[in-house]
Amino acid sequence: MARSPRRLAPDARREQLVGAALEAFADGSYERVGLEEVAARADVARPLLYRYFPGGKPELFVAVLEEAWRRLVDQVDTGDGRPVTAKLPANVARFVGLAERSDPALRVVQQARHVDEPRVREITRDARRAWARSMAVNHLGTADPPEPVLAVLTGYLAFGEVLLEEWRIHGTITRADVERMLEGALPPLVGLVSAH
Amino acid sequence: MARSPRRLAPDARREQLVGAALEAFADGSYERVGLEEVAARADVARPLLYRYFPGGKPELFVAVLEEAWRRLVDQVDTGDGRPVTAKLPANVARFVGLAERSDPALRVVQQARHVDEPRVREITRDARRAWARSMAVNHLGTADPPEPVLAVLTGYLAFGEVLLEEWRIHGTITRADVERMLEGALPPLVGLVSAH
Repeated sequence: MARSPRRLAPDARREQLVGAALEAFADGSYERVGLEEVAARADVARPLLYRYFPGGKPELFVAVLEEAWRRLVDQVDTGDGRPVTAKLPANVARFVGLAERSDPALRVVQQARHVDEPRVREITRDARRAWARSMAVNHLGTADPPEPVLAVLTGYLAFGEVLLEEWRIHGTITRADVERMLEGALPPLVGLVSAH
Repeated sequence: MARSPRRLAPDARREQLVGAALEAFADGSYERVGLEEVAARADVARPLLYRYFPGGKPELFVAVLEEAWRRLVDQVDTGDGRPVTAKLPANVARFVGLAERSDPALRVVQQARHVDEPRVREITRDARRAWARSMAVNHLGTADPPEPVLAVLTGYLAFGEVLLEEWRIHGTITRADVERMLEGALPPLVGLVSAH
Protein backbone atom coordinates (compact mmCIF):
# COMPACT_ATOMS: atom_id res chain seq x y z
CA MET A 1 0.00 0.00 0.00
CA ALA A 2 1.32 3.43 -0.93
CA ARG A 3 2.30 5.65 1.96
CA SER A 4 1.04 9.16 1.87
CA PRO A 5 3.82 11.61 2.56
CA ARG A 6 1.47 13.76 4.61
CA ARG A 7 3.06 15.23 7.72
CA LEU A 8 0.87 15.87 10.73
CA ALA A 9 1.54 17.53 14.07
CA PRO A 10 1.78 14.89 16.84
CA ASP A 11 -1.66 15.63 18.29
CA ALA A 12 -3.32 15.50 14.91
CA ARG A 13 -1.42 12.32 14.01
CA ARG A 14 -2.45 10.63 17.24
CA GLU A 15 -6.06 11.61 16.61
CA GLN A 16 -5.88 10.25 13.08
CA LEU A 17 -4.41 6.93 14.29
CA VAL A 18 -7.07 6.55 16.99
CA GLY A 19 -9.79 7.33 14.46
CA ALA A 20 -8.50 4.72 12.02
CA ALA A 21 -8.14 2.16 14.82
CA LEU A 22 -11.66 2.89 16.02
CA GLU A 23 -13.05 2.03 12.59
CA ALA A 24 -10.90 -1.11 12.45
CA PHE A 25 -11.97 -2.40 15.87
CA ALA A 26 -15.60 -1.55 15.14
CA ASP A 27 -15.52 -3.59 11.92
CA GLY A 28 -13.58 -6.49 13.45
CA SER A 29 -13.04 -7.41 17.07
CA TYR A 30 -10.34 -6.89 19.65
CA GLU A 31 -9.04 -10.40 19.14
CA ARG A 32 -9.00 -10.39 15.36
CA VAL A 33 -7.78 -6.90 14.50
CA GLY A 34 -4.00 -6.57 14.18
CA LEU A 35 -1.78 -3.51 14.15
CA GLU A 36 -0.94 -4.24 10.51
CA GLU A 37 -4.56 -3.64 9.58
CA VAL A 38 -4.76 -0.44 11.62
CA ALA A 39 -1.55 0.85 10.00
CA ALA A 40 -2.97 0.11 6.55
CA ARG A 41 -6.20 1.94 7.31
CA ALA A 42 -4.30 4.93 8.66
CA ASP A 43 -1.96 4.76 5.67
CA VAL A 44 1.14 4.76 7.87
CA ALA A 45 3.98 2.34 8.53
CA ARG A 46 3.53 -0.03 11.46
CA PRO A 47 6.48 1.36 13.49
CA LEU A 48 4.74 4.72 13.61
CA LEU A 49 1.89 3.10 15.55
CA TYR A 50 4.41 1.83 18.10
CA ARG A 51 5.92 5.29 18.42
CA TYR A 52 2.52 6.63 19.54
CA PHE A 53 1.40 3.49 21.37
CA PRO A 54 4.51 1.75 22.72
CA GLY A 55 2.30 -0.76 24.55
CA GLY A 56 0.98 -2.04 21.22
CA LYS A 57 -2.58 -3.27 20.74
CA PRO A 58 -3.75 -3.08 24.38
CA GLU A 59 -2.62 0.54 24.67
CA LEU A 60 -4.14 1.46 21.31
CA PHE A 61 -7.45 -0.17 22.23
CA VAL A 62 -7.56 1.78 25.49
CA ALA A 63 -7.16 5.03 23.53
CA VAL A 64 -9.86 3.90 21.09
CA LEU A 65 -12.25 2.99 23.88
CA GLU A 66 -11.76 6.36 25.57
CA GLU A 67 -12.45 8.11 22.28
CA ALA A 68 -15.53 5.96 21.62
CA TRP A 69 -17.01 6.75 25.03
CA ARG A 70 -16.20 10.45 24.59
CA ARG A 71 -18.21 10.47 21.38
CA LEU A 72 -21.13 8.67 23.04
CA VAL A 73 -21.22 10.75 26.21
CA ASP A 74 -21.09 13.88 24.03
CA GLN A 75 -24.35 12.73 22.45
CA VAL A 76 -26.32 13.12 25.67
CA ASP A 77 -28.37 16.29 25.39
CA THR A 78 -28.14 18.07 28.72
CA GLY A 79 -29.11 21.43 27.23
CA ASP A 80 -31.04 23.59 29.63
CA GLY A 81 -34.31 25.29 28.97
CA ARG A 82 -36.35 22.25 28.04
CA PRO A 83 -38.09 19.98 30.52
CA VAL A 84 -36.74 16.48 31.03
CA THR A 85 -39.96 15.01 29.65
CA ALA A 86 -38.90 16.42 26.29
CA LYS A 87 -35.23 15.49 26.53
CA LEU A 88 -35.68 11.85 27.56
CA PRO A 89 -37.49 10.68 24.39
CA ALA A 90 -35.04 12.67 22.25
CA ASN A 91 -32.01 11.16 24.01
CA VAL A 92 -33.44 7.65 23.80
CA ALA A 93 -34.23 8.10 20.10
CA ARG A 94 -30.70 9.38 19.45
CA PHE A 95 -29.04 6.33 21.04
CA VAL A 96 -31.42 3.85 19.48
CA GLY A 97 -30.61 5.53 16.17
CA LEU A 98 -26.88 5.02 16.78
CA ALA A 99 -27.55 1.33 17.32
CA GLU A 100 -29.68 1.12 14.19
CA ARG A 101 -26.88 2.65 12.12
CA SER A 102 -24.29 0.34 13.78
CA ASP A 103 -22.37 3.39 14.94
CA PRO A 104 -18.65 2.52 15.23
CA ALA A 105 -18.23 4.11 18.69
CA LEU A 106 -21.16 2.12 20.02
CA ARG A 107 -19.79 -1.11 18.52
CA VAL A 108 -16.40 -0.53 20.14
CA VAL A 109 -18.02 0.07 23.51
CA GLN A 110 -20.09 -3.10 23.16
CA GLN A 111 -17.03 -5.16 22.24
CA ALA A 112 -15.10 -3.82 25.20
CA ARG A 113 -17.43 -5.65 27.55
CA HIS A 114 -15.85 -8.88 26.34
CA VAL A 115 -12.21 -7.78 26.62
CA ASP A 116 -10.76 -9.18 29.80
CA GLU A 117 -8.25 -6.43 30.66
CA PRO A 118 -8.43 -4.60 34.01
CA ARG A 119 -7.76 -1.23 32.33
CA VAL A 120 -10.59 -1.83 29.85
CA ARG A 121 -13.03 -2.63 32.65
CA GLU A 122 -11.92 0.48 34.52
CA ILE A 123 -12.48 2.75 31.52
CA THR A 124 -15.86 1.16 30.87
CA ARG A 125 -16.97 1.80 34.44
CA ASP A 126 -15.61 5.37 34.49
CA ALA A 127 -17.30 6.16 31.19
CA ARG A 128 -20.61 4.65 32.26
CA ARG A 129 -20.43 6.85 35.34
CA ALA A 130 -19.68 9.91 33.21
CA TRP A 131 -22.73 9.08 31.16
CA ALA A 132 -24.74 8.59 34.34
CA ARG A 133 -23.67 12.07 35.50
CA SER A 134 -24.97 13.57 32.26
CA MET A 135 -28.27 11.84 32.80
CA ALA A 136 -28.35 13.06 36.40
CA VAL A 137 -28.11 16.64 35.12
CA ASN A 138 -31.35 16.09 33.24
CA HIS A 139 -33.20 14.11 35.87
CA LEU A 140 -31.92 15.55 39.12
CA GLY A 141 -30.39 18.86 38.16
CA THR A 142 -26.88 17.88 39.28
CA ALA A 143 -23.86 16.17 37.73
CA ASP A 144 -22.75 15.06 41.17
CA PRO A 145 -25.57 12.96 42.61
CA PRO A 146 -25.17 10.52 45.52
CA GLU A 147 -23.59 7.15 44.76
CA PRO A 148 -26.88 5.19 44.82
CA VAL A 149 -28.15 7.41 42.00
CA LEU A 150 -25.01 6.81 39.94
CA ALA A 151 -25.33 3.07 40.59
CA VAL A 152 -28.95 3.01 39.41
CA LEU A 153 -28.18 5.07 36.30
CA THR A 154 -25.18 2.86 35.49
CA GLY A 155 -27.40 -0.17 35.95
CA TYR A 156 -29.95 1.42 33.62
CA LEU A 157 -27.26 1.55 30.92
CA ALA A 158 -26.59 -2.15 31.37
CA PHE A 159 -30.36 -2.73 31.15
CA GLY A 160 -30.40 -0.76 27.91
CA GLU A 161 -27.50 -2.73 26.45
CA VAL A 162 -29.46 -5.95 26.89
CA LEU A 163 -32.50 -4.45 25.15
CA LEU A 164 -30.35 -3.26 22.24
CA GLU A 165 -28.86 -6.76 21.87
CA GLU A 166 -32.27 -8.40 21.93
CA TRP A 167 -33.46 -6.05 19.21
CA ARG A 168 -30.37 -5.86 17.01
CA ILE A 169 -28.76 -9.28 17.41
CA HIS A 170 -31.61 -11.61 18.31
CA GLY A 171 -34.57 -9.79 16.79
CA THR A 172 -36.88 -10.78 19.65
CA ILE A 173 -38.19 -7.25 20.19
CA THR A 174 -38.72 -4.20 17.99
CA ARG A 175 -37.18 -0.74 17.93
CA ALA A 176 -40.48 0.61 19.25
CA ASP A 177 -40.30 -1.85 22.20
CA VAL A 178 -36.79 -0.67 23.02
CA GLU A 179 -37.78 2.99 22.95
CA ARG A 180 -40.88 2.44 25.04
CA MET A 181 -38.95 0.42 27.65
CA LEU A 182 -36.03 2.84 27.85
CA GLU A 183 -38.33 5.84 28.20
CA GLY A 184 -40.57 4.09 30.69
CA ALA A 185 -37.88 2.54 32.88
CA LEU A 186 -35.84 5.59 33.73
CA PRO A 187 -38.32 7.67 35.79
CA PRO A 188 -39.27 4.87 38.23
CA LEU A 189 -35.60 3.81 38.58
CA VAL A 190 -34.51 7.35 39.36
CA GLY A 191 -37.48 7.62 41.69
CA LEU A 192 -36.13 4.68 43.72
CA VAL A 193 -33.11 6.65 44.85
CA SER A 194 -33.76 10.35 44.30
CA ALA A 195 -35.72 10.72 47.52
CA HIS A 196 -32.62 9.75 49.53
CA MET B 1 0.22 -35.25 44.05
CA ALA B 2 -1.04 -38.71 45.01
CA ARG B 3 -3.80 -40.07 42.81
CA SER B 4 -6.78 -41.54 44.56
CA PRO B 5 -7.58 -44.95 43.12
CA ARG B 6 -11.30 -44.20 43.47
CA ARG B 7 -13.38 -45.47 40.58
CA LEU B 8 -16.51 -43.61 39.62
CA ALA B 9 -19.23 -44.30 37.08
CA PRO B 10 -18.87 -41.98 34.06
CA ASP B 11 -21.75 -39.68 35.06
CA ALA B 12 -20.47 -39.35 38.59
CA ARG B 13 -16.94 -38.78 37.36
CA ARG B 14 -18.06 -36.07 34.96
CA GLU B 15 -20.00 -34.40 37.74
CA GLN B 16 -16.97 -34.54 40.01
CA LEU B 17 -14.71 -33.05 37.33
CA VAL B 18 -17.16 -30.22 36.61
CA GLY B 19 -17.48 -29.52 40.34
CA ALA B 20 -13.71 -29.33 40.80
CA ALA B 21 -13.35 -27.14 37.72
CA LEU B 22 -16.12 -24.84 38.94
CA GLU B 23 -14.21 -24.20 42.17
CA ALA B 24 -10.98 -23.67 40.23
CA PHE B 25 -12.48 -21.16 37.79
CA ALA B 26 -14.30 -19.38 40.64
CA ASP B 27 -11.02 -18.94 42.55
CA GLY B 28 -9.01 -17.94 39.49
CA SER B 29 -10.17 -16.74 36.12
CA TYR B 30 -10.77 -18.26 32.72
CA GLU B 31 -7.44 -16.96 31.44
CA ARG B 32 -5.33 -18.03 34.38
CA VAL B 33 -6.71 -21.44 35.31
CA GLY B 34 -5.08 -24.36 33.52
CA LEU B 35 -6.19 -27.95 33.12
CA GLU B 36 -3.26 -29.03 35.29
CA GLU B 37 -4.78 -27.16 38.22
CA VAL B 38 -8.23 -28.59 37.61
CA ALA B 39 -6.78 -32.11 37.43
CA ALA B 40 -4.95 -31.56 40.71
CA ARG B 41 -8.10 -30.32 42.42
CA ALA B 42 -10.10 -33.29 41.12
CA ASP B 43 -7.25 -35.59 42.09
CA VAL B 44 -7.09 -37.15 38.65
CA ALA B 45 -4.51 -37.35 35.88
CA ARG B 46 -4.71 -34.69 33.18
CA PRO B 47 -5.50 -37.12 30.33
CA LEU B 48 -8.68 -38.11 32.14
CA LEU B 49 -9.92 -34.53 31.78
CA TYR B 50 -9.36 -34.77 28.03
CA ARG B 51 -11.26 -38.03 27.88
CA TYR B 52 -14.34 -36.25 29.27
CA PHE B 53 -13.70 -32.90 27.60
CA PRO B 54 -11.87 -33.53 24.31
CA GLY B 55 -12.13 -29.83 23.47
CA GLY B 56 -9.97 -28.95 26.46
CA LYS B 57 -10.43 -25.79 28.49
CA PRO B 58 -13.15 -24.12 26.35
CA GLU B 59 -15.31 -27.25 26.48
CA LEU B 60 -14.73 -27.70 30.21
CA PHE B 61 -15.61 -24.07 30.90
CA VAL B 62 -18.85 -24.40 28.95
CA ALA B 63 -19.83 -27.39 31.14
CA VAL B 64 -18.87 -25.42 34.25
CA LEU B 65 -20.87 -22.39 33.17
CA GLU B 66 -23.94 -24.52 32.48
CA GLU B 67 -23.62 -26.10 35.93
CA ALA B 68 -23.14 -22.69 37.59
CA TRP B 69 -26.26 -21.28 35.96
CA ARG B 70 -28.22 -24.43 36.84
CA ARG B 71 -27.33 -23.90 40.49
CA LEU B 72 -28.32 -20.23 40.36
CA VAL B 73 -31.59 -20.70 38.50
CA ASP B 74 -32.48 -23.46 40.98
CA GLN B 75 -32.26 -20.85 43.74
CA VAL B 76 -35.22 -18.87 42.42
CA ASP B 77 -38.18 -19.62 44.65
CA THR B 78 -41.18 -20.08 42.39
CA GLY B 79 -43.12 -22.05 44.99
CA ASP B 80 -46.80 -21.49 44.75
CA GLY B 81 -49.12 -20.53 47.55
CA ARG B 82 -47.39 -17.33 48.62
CA PRO B 83 -47.96 -13.93 47.07
CA VAL B 84 -45.21 -12.40 44.98
CA THR B 85 -44.87 -9.56 47.48
CA ALA B 86 -43.49 -12.14 49.90
CA LYS B 87 -41.32 -14.01 47.40
CA LEU B 88 -39.57 -11.00 45.84
CA PRO B 89 -37.77 -9.81 49.01
CA ALA B 90 -36.85 -13.42 49.85
CA ASN B 91 -35.45 -14.06 46.38
CA VAL B 92 -33.53 -10.79 46.40
CA ALA B 93 -32.09 -11.53 49.84
CA ARG B 94 -31.05 -15.01 48.72
CA PHE B 95 -29.08 -13.70 45.73
CA VAL B 96 -27.56 -10.83 47.61
CA GLY B 97 -26.51 -13.41 50.20
CA LEU B 98 -24.82 -15.50 47.50
CA ALA B 99 -22.86 -12.42 46.44
CA GLU B 100 -21.91 -11.64 50.03
CA ARG B 101 -20.55 -15.16 50.49
CA SER B 102 -18.74 -14.97 47.11
CA ASP B 103 -20.64 -18.02 45.95
CA PRO B 104 -18.54 -19.96 43.38
CA ALA B 105 -21.40 -20.38 40.89
CA LEU B 106 -22.07 -16.65 40.95
CA ARG B 107 -18.39 -15.86 40.48
CA VAL B 108 -18.16 -18.16 37.46
CA VAL B 109 -21.20 -16.52 35.90
CA GLN B 110 -19.73 -13.07 36.48
CA GLN B 111 -16.41 -14.08 34.93
CA ALA B 112 -18.14 -15.52 31.90
CA ARG B 113 -19.22 -12.03 30.89
CA HIS B 114 -15.59 -11.32 30.05
CA VAL B 115 -14.90 -14.52 28.09
CA ASP B 116 -15.07 -13.74 24.40
CA GLU B 117 -16.35 -17.08 23.06
CA PRO B 118 -19.58 -17.27 21.05
CA ARG B 119 -20.67 -20.43 22.90
CA VAL B 120 -20.14 -18.74 26.25
CA ARG B 121 -22.24 -15.74 25.22
CA GLU B 122 -24.95 -18.08 23.98
CA ILE B 123 -25.09 -20.00 27.27
CA THR B 124 -25.14 -16.78 29.23
CA ARG B 125 -28.08 -15.48 27.25
CA ASP B 126 -29.98 -18.78 27.40
CA ALA B 127 -29.44 -19.02 31.14
CA ARG B 128 -30.48 -15.43 31.76
CA ARG B 129 -33.65 -16.18 29.84
CA ALA B 130 -34.25 -19.32 31.92
CA TRP B 131 -33.89 -17.20 35.02
CA ALA B 132 -36.24 -14.61 33.52
CA ARG B 133 -38.81 -17.36 32.95
CA SER B 134 -38.62 -18.33 36.63
CA MET B 135 -39.21 -14.73 37.59
CA ALA B 136 -42.10 -14.53 35.15
CA VAL B 137 -43.76 -17.41 36.99
CA ASN B 138 -43.78 -15.30 40.13
CA HIS B 139 -44.69 -11.99 38.58
CA LEU B 140 -46.97 -12.95 35.72
CA GLY B 141 -48.04 -16.49 36.49
CA THR B 142 -46.43 -17.96 33.38
CA ALA B 143 -43.02 -19.33 32.44
CA ASP B 144 -43.68 -18.46 28.82
CA PRO B 145 -44.29 -14.71 28.70
CA PRO B 146 -44.05 -12.59 25.53
CA GLU B 147 -40.57 -11.64 24.34
CA PRO B 148 -40.70 -8.04 25.59
CA VAL B 149 -41.24 -9.38 29.12
CA LEU B 150 -38.26 -11.73 28.81
CA ALA B 151 -36.16 -8.85 27.48
CA VAL B 152 -37.07 -6.61 30.40
CA LEU B 153 -36.41 -9.34 32.97
CA THR B 154 -33.09 -10.19 31.31
CA GLY B 155 -32.22 -6.50 31.40
CA TYR B 156 -33.15 -6.42 35.07
CA LEU B 157 -30.53 -9.11 35.72
CA ALA B 158 -27.90 -6.98 33.98
CA PHE B 159 -29.06 -4.03 36.10
CA GLY B 160 -28.64 -6.20 39.20
CA GLU B 161 -25.15 -7.30 38.18
CA VAL B 162 -24.02 -3.67 38.06
CA LEU B 163 -25.44 -3.03 41.53
CA LEU B 164 -23.67 -6.10 42.92
CA GLU B 165 -20.38 -4.93 41.44
CA GLU B 166 -20.78 -1.43 42.85
CA TRP B 167 -21.42 -2.89 46.28
CA ARG B 168 -18.92 -5.77 46.32
CA ILE B 169 -16.05 -4.51 44.19
CA HIS B 170 -16.20 -0.73 44.45
CA GLY B 171 -17.93 -0.29 47.79
CA THR B 172 -19.89 2.74 46.59
CA ILE B 173 -23.25 1.46 47.84
CA THR B 174 -24.38 -0.81 50.68
CA ARG B 175 -26.05 -4.18 50.81
CA ALA B 176 -29.21 -2.43 51.99
CA ASP B 177 -29.09 -0.13 48.94
CA VAL B 178 -28.81 -3.13 46.63
CA GLU B 179 -31.75 -4.90 48.24
CA ARG B 180 -33.92 -1.80 48.20
CA MET B 181 -33.12 -1.11 44.53
CA LEU B 182 -33.63 -4.70 43.38
CA GLU B 183 -36.94 -4.99 45.21
CA GLY B 184 -38.12 -1.59 44.06
CA ALA B 185 -37.06 -1.84 40.42
CA LEU B 186 -38.76 -5.07 39.42
CA PRO B 187 -42.46 -4.17 39.77
CA PRO B 188 -42.29 -0.98 37.64
CA LEU B 189 -40.13 -2.72 35.02
CA VAL B 190 -42.54 -5.63 34.74
CA GLY B 191 -45.37 -3.10 34.66
CA LEU B 192 -43.85 -1.55 31.53
CA VAL B 193 -44.54 -4.66 29.49
CA SER B 194 -47.09 -6.80 31.26
CA ALA B 195 -50.03 -4.79 29.96
CA HIS B 196 -49.11 -5.78 26.39
